[in-house]
Amino acid sequence: MKVYFDNAATTAMDDGVIDAMIPYMKEHYGNPSSVHSHGREVRSAIEKSRKKVAELLNASPSEIFFTSGGTEADNTAIVCGIHTHGIKHAITSPIEHHAVLHTLEECEKKGHIKLSKVEVDEFGSINLDHLQELLKANPKSLVSIMHANNEIGNINDLSAIGNIAKEYDAFFHSDTVQTMGHYPHDLKNLPIDAVVAGGHKFHGPKGAGFLYVNKAKKITPFIYGGAQERNMRGGTENVIGIVGIAKALELAYEDMDGHRKHIEKLKSRFIEQLQENIAGVSFNGLSADMDKSLYTVLNVSLPPSEENSGMLLFNLDLHGISASGGSACSSGATVGSHVLRALGASAERDSVRFSFSRFNTAEEVDYTVGKLKELYGVIA
Amino acid sequence: MKVYFDNAATTAMDDGVIDAMIPYMKEHYGNPSSVHSHGREVRSAIEKSRKKVAELLNASPSEIFFTSGGTEADNTAIVCGIHTHGIKHAITSPIEHHAVLHTLEECEKKGHIKLSKVEVDEFGSINLDHLQELLKANPKSLVSIMHANNEIGNINDLSAIGNIAKEYDAFFHSDTVQTMGHYPHDLKNLPIDAVVAGGHKFHGPKGAGFLYVNKAKKITPFIYGGAQERNMRGGTENVIGIVGIAKALELAYEDMDGHRKHIEKLKSRFIEQLQENIAGVSFNGLSADMDKSLYTVLNVSLPPSEENSGMLLFNLDLHGISASGGSACSSGATVGSHVLRALGASAERDSVRFSFSRFNTAEEVDYTVGKLKELYGVIA
Ligand SMILES: Cc1ncc(COP(=O)(O)O)c(C=O)c1O
Ligand SMILES: Cc1ncc(COP(=O)(O)O)c(C=O)c1O
Repeated sequence: MKVYFDNAATTAMDDGVIDAMIPYMKEHYGNPSSVHSHGREVRSAIEKSRKKVAELLNASPSEIFFTSGGTEADNTAIVCGIHTHGIKHAITSPIEHHAVLHTLEECEKKGHIKLSKVEVDEFGSINLDHLQELLKANPKSLVSIMHANNEIGNINDLSAIGNIAKEYDAFFHSDTVQTMGHYPHDLKNLPIDAVVAGGHKFHGPKGAGFLYVNKAKKITPFIYGGAQERNMRGGTENVIGIVGIAKALELAYEDMDGHRKHIEKLKSRFIEQLQENIAGVSFNGLSADMDKSLYTVLNVSLPPSEENSGMLLFNLDLHGISASGGSACSSGATVGSHVLRALGASAERDSVRFSFSRFNTAEEVDYTVGKLKELYGVIA
Repeated sequence: MKVYFDNAATTAMDDGVIDAMIPYMKEHYGNPSSVHSHGREVRSAIEKSRKKVAELLNASPSEIFFTSGGTEADNTAIVCGIHTHGIKHAITSPIEHHAVLHTLEECEKKGHIKLSKVEVDEFGSINLDHLQELLKANPKSLVSIMHANNEIGNINDLSAIGNIAKEYDAFFHSDTVQTMGHYPHDLKNLPIDAVVAGGHKFHGPKGAGFLYVNKAKKITPFIYGGAQERNMRGGTENVIGIVGIAKALELAYEDMDGHRKHIEKLKSRFIEQLQENIAGVSFNGLSADMDKSLYTVLNVSLPPSEENSGMLLFNLDLHGISASGGSACSSGATVGSHVLRALGASAERDSVRFSFSRFNTAEEVDYTVGKLKELYGVIA
């Protein structure tokens, strides 16, 4: 049996997405910037995609910019937010994705900002009082705090954070890569300046993303060149990527509740079976709390085991089960997770992230727990 | 009849490229950074693509970095070349693509460099003596001069420019977007530090490009995030784009001479027929010189005509002919071309760029000249 439980790293493309993309590979090949008929038909596909994304997120089309992925969108919001608004101080959390952390660290290294990190507790929860203190001491900061963590699944309250940010006139960016397409976003009614998406996290294409920037907080471009994306991003557009990500978001919204219910059942079943079958199992962060974590992510902490120490992912892989240690999307090798480190996780226990999509089944959960039981049977 | 003569703006994808991409849409969806089987098979496709590109260009795989296109690659070479090597002065030409010009202008605006422009004559030829003077006064500059101009087709001598650059210890970047896949590049034997490609200019996908950086002149990343591309570009890879651009380059090299001969015939035929049929026709830049310009580009200057003034592209479009004014890839509207302006082209004459690919035919040339003859018949 082949089981793909690494959907927070990337997802399989939906057939509907592929079908939407293929005509732009085969027939409609014009350059969207060209004014002739070959160009116009492609331009129209891009603008329809932008309109669709904007509608679904309750934003305006002029606030949506297509990028090469979540990482470029994060870089743009951060680097250009800081530059455009003359920001001198930034606040982030220690458990952000590297697309945010490394970008901010680089901005600090270049001397553009001073960087502060808000405290998180051993479950990965953000200390909002500390955020308030930091902002009080540094108004007009850039605040970059993710919506949901890609490793432990914790969901942050964007309204609460946004309201504090607003109080101190901050530029508030949130890395929403893990919630986009899985949770509804109502951007006109959120106190937020920038959010991002990566299409491949919700059954769309890799290498396609978008950035939303609130029209009240315009920023300069990150990539300079032609007049594409209303002068906000130079470069001939990744037309198939744009058509694909918009279609993927549309399909995600078409039955978001249905997908959610299906996946929540799998996650609950997984938790229950683990608790029944593996003595000493626990869960990292808030990932076992069905209300406070992504329904797509379960981060399991396994009891110390000599047989499996450092070999767990490898052993699962041998049984056809694809899961992840740290965040697959940010590390080539299995270097330790900076997120689990920030939570003070024990180095003696192996952690594994299982992450689900609407394409997974109960049988896959049962099979995987069965294999974990075999692997950890010696100590059960 | 529908005629696509805008191949310098973008080309139709080759069926072989599409066929290479589709399995990575349908079957192989893993994240290349994941260590499990789903990830490894995709990682392997990326590294094979890198190796293929490196082999074809006589570079080493560690010198090839995949990007979201030519524009991002240009931005990376310029912004990070300047940053990494502590460069304080840059030299470019007034007829570069906006991906280079706007990027350098922004670096100047931010106070990172002072920017000088090398002189070009009325045919768009670079004054190499002036380049030498500028470098003498500003050693250790960044030099960014394109291999071939996308509007007028002029080809620059990269060896000559590179040797001058080397003499003054400059970082030499060349925008090779218009020659990649159309002319052979032998990077180990060129005095050059960085070149770039955009896949959609040679029958590959839009939104996929690459950057070559000479291993002796390493640079820091432009987009920060995960450890992808050997820590040189964060972000989940555009797998289908990477597989597609490598396949497109492979197909281009498979019969480069054959394609060239086919297209050269079309271009010569076009020039001859225009000269026979349109009194007062001329050609911008060196574009009618078969040796000194791209075989893919012909930039035609038409005699003043009240009927066609400002309407030429529109009139051609009405007859199903897609061609371009300025560079389609850099302007949404038909704003005047900065290239033709730099050459001092007369504002009374309409200019149109016809650009060809191996998919074009002699019939299309004849049809187009026929239509131009009708449009300009009144004055013939
Ligand atoms: C000379 C030149 N440089 C750069 C670019 C930009 O490349 P891309 O469209 O892949 O971003 C183009 C065309 O678009 C070009 O013709
Ligand atoms: C939270 C988070 N942010 C950013 C990214 C980067 O997005 P992308 O892979 O589209 O560059 C990822 C995953 O890769 C992620 O999980």
